[in-house]
Amino acid sequence: MDVNNKESYEKGIDVLKKLTDEHGISMIQSYKDISPEFTEMMISFGFGTVYTTGSLELKQRTMLTMASLVSQGAFEQLPFHIRAAINLGISPQEIVEVILHCAAYAGFPKAASGMRIARDLFQELGVELPGESS
Amino acid sequence: MDVNNKESYEKGIDVLKKLTDEHGISMIQSYKDISPEFTEMMISFGFGTVYTTGSLELKQRTMLTMASLVSQGAFEQLPFHIRAAINLGISPQEIVEVILHCAAYAGFPKAASGMRIARDLFQELGVELPGESS
Amino acid sequence: MDVNNKESYEKGIDVLKKLTDEHGISMIQSYKDISPEFTEMMISFGFGTVYTTGSLELKQRTMLTMASLVSQGAFEQLPFHIRAAINLGISPQEIVEVILHCAAYAGFPKAASGMRIARDLFQELGVELPGESS
Amino acid sequence: MDVNNKESYEKGIDVLKKLTDEHGISMIQSYKDISPEFTEMMISFGFGTVYTTGSLELKQRTMLTMASLVSQGAFEQLPFHIRAAINLGISPQEIVEVILHCAAYAGFPKAASGMRIARDLFQELGVELPGESS
Amino acid sequence: MDVNNKESYEKGIDVLKKLTDEHGISMIQSYKDISPEFTEMMISFGFGTVYTTGSLELKQRTMLTMASLVSQGAFEQLPFHIRAAINLGISPQEIVEVILHCAAYAGFPKAASGMRIARDLFQELGVELPGESS
Amino acid sequence: MDVNNKESYEKGIDVLKKLTDEHGISMIQSYKDISPEFTEMMISFGFGTVYTTGSLELKQRTMLTMASLVSQGAFEQLPFHIRAAINLGISPQEIVEVILHCAAYAGFPKAASGMRIARDLFQELGVELPGESS
Repeated sequence: MDVNNKESYEKGIDVLKKLTDEHGISMIQSYKDISPEFTEMMISFGFGTVYTTGSLELKQRTMLTMASLVSQGAFEQLPFHIRAAINLGISPQEIVEVILHCAAYAGFPKAASGMRIARDLFQELGVELPGESS
Repeated sequence: MDVNNKESYEKGIDVLKKLTDEHGISMIQSYKDISPEFTEMMISFGFGTVYTTGSLELKQRTMLTMASLVSQGAFEQLPFHIRAAINLGISPQEIVEVILHCAAYAGFPKAASGMRIARDLFQELGVELPGESS
Repeated sequence: MDVNNKESYEKGIDVLKKLTDEHGISMIQSYKDISPEFTEMMISFGFGTVYTTGSLELKQRTMLTMASLVSQGAFEQLPFHIRAAINLGISPQEIVEVILHCAAYAGFPKAASGMRIARDLFQELGVELPGESS
Repeated sequence: MDVNNKESYEKGIDVLKKLTDEHGISMIQSYKDISPEFTEMMISFGFGTVYTTGSLELKQRTMLTMASLVSQGAFEQLPFHIRAAINLGISPQEIVEVILHCAAYAGFPKAASGMRIARDLFQELGVELPGESS
Repeated sequence: MDVNNKESYEKGIDVLKKLTDEHGISMIQSYKDISPEFTEMMISFGFGTVYTTGSLELKQRTMLTMASLVSQGAFEQLPFHIRAAINLGISPQEIVEVILHCAAYAGFPKAASGMRIARDLFQELGVELPGESS
Repeated sequence: MDVNNKESYEKGIDVLKKLTDEHGISMIQSYKDISPEFTEMMISFGFGTVYTTGSLELKQRTMLTMASLVSQGAFEQLPFHIRAAINLGISPQEIVEVILHCAAYAGFPKAASGMRIARDLFQELGVELPGESS
């Protein structure tokens, strides 16, 4: 890793510590076997630079991320960011509302996939599903 | 559920009864645990309003739906609508032609995924594959 | 042009004669200056092979095409196919219903762009807008 | 318009009054000439139902909307929602940060188109560009 | 199969023999049970016509194909083309660089899915991962 | 601009000097009025880091970029990269072949938009169109 980006890399790790736990950081770093450069770019540029530039809070950025992933159908990374949302104190109800908002803007099929992924993850984590208490 | 939309909801259930069976309706309603609002919107707005507005027939709408799903790569919902197509009397050959048409407009890779999903479903349902008799 | 595909090319021209007029065929052929191969493939493969394989009618194919274009946001080719729809006897109301169907499956923004394009074209062609008489 | 949805329609108009001005509402209603049904659905379902379901604030929803539009490349509707953002008190700097966030998640080209559209609109509205004072 | 396209079909098989092995050709031909027409079009048009038109080399075309698949999120066909890349002598490191390039142009989430698929395939094939030796 | 990224920024400017001319660099830098951070990221991360990591040549990267842009329908940035292709010595014929390759992988409509944009640019630049001499 280029020493030039060491500061960004450390800022990225700091952001990741707020979004995820040791397991999540290991998951991001596990891309090192296929591409150390890609791993470094995700951490230094993605989390270290984009997430720390400007005034938006981490909660806002994580909500925007979920909307972006659902709207472009990039579902493989959605569980990581739903976990991050929970870690940041975004409620399961709010997570569901973000996905529901995308139903109007990106169509029901993508929202339905997002809902299914959120349900699977909530169940895995033992989080009460937003619709169960209503 | 808002009484205001009760009529649309019932129209949606009526449409669903033509598209699917009890199992399919249960599948749609199973989203209630994660989001009763999303479930209500799919049924009232999606099936109850969009599907009942205007003059297009259910067969036409289901063919358009399959083309939309393949063209945007939203494959998770494709089996539900291929099942609906079969229930409405659209032949397996016609279903395959819809997906093949998308090869020209959305590229071979998305059409190939659609073909694989159709084959898996036809085999699960015991429907003779369109290419087997030719 | 490869003599091998001459038959497909002529079938493509025959399909185009049903979808469009001399002006439309010239428009398709105008890509020859940038790529004779691409032009030949559109006509021989797209219109000559895909459009003539199987049992779907031209009206059905044109409705599927409009749904595919709106759902993937490929709007530049939409006017050509809306014109084709009109030439085939699909009513302006039905064209609007195809786009509206996509609102549920691909979101309101893409449907709104489709509606704006349909309106612009209907006005250019002097076709009464579906909402004006209601 | 179906009396059944009158309440949702009025809720949609109320939401629109917070997002936009008379000119913006007229713009939404201008789709009536091409499709009164589509116009009614955008207002009743989109703004009247989706925007009023759950606990997210209008500011949050508008930020999610901008992220969804940029991420799926549906730029034609972006100016309407950037105007809404300004009306709701979201700063030009925050609007730019939402688009910048999408650079990481949906790539630089879509973010660049979003930036160009925001700049054009800010200049049209006489809003100082976020980069000019820095 | 139309004798008219026999030459293109044979050219397609010749291209496939350079891209893949018997197993890969069988995989492409396995679509015959669901749609002999689609299978024929993939081979005659896709591999027989598009891949043999013009001056680009097979290596270049395969790199473009990988970039196209990652950029549109059409991941199901990616393993076939990564295998083709390896068969053509494109190094695992170069394959990873193509996917990494897409991170900037189509966003990190699609690139991350591409990286995961490449890793899974390299491990299945016993290819040393590019990051392991560094 | 963060001094930390000064080296990457300068590497990005060096890459840009090979891809474009003073006018092109000014165009990239013109985003500074809307977002100096975005401009810095495009140059430092996009051109300075992604383009300089690994062994792919600039010609290869520019071909991949064109395929990515066409395949995701991000056409606004396509002229910049077609100009870059010409500056790097990629022939108009090869540019057209890249777009044509995308017809098979992302559908004819996106390829047709790419062809139209290439033609407009070639005409603006006084470059002989590839189809005119054939």
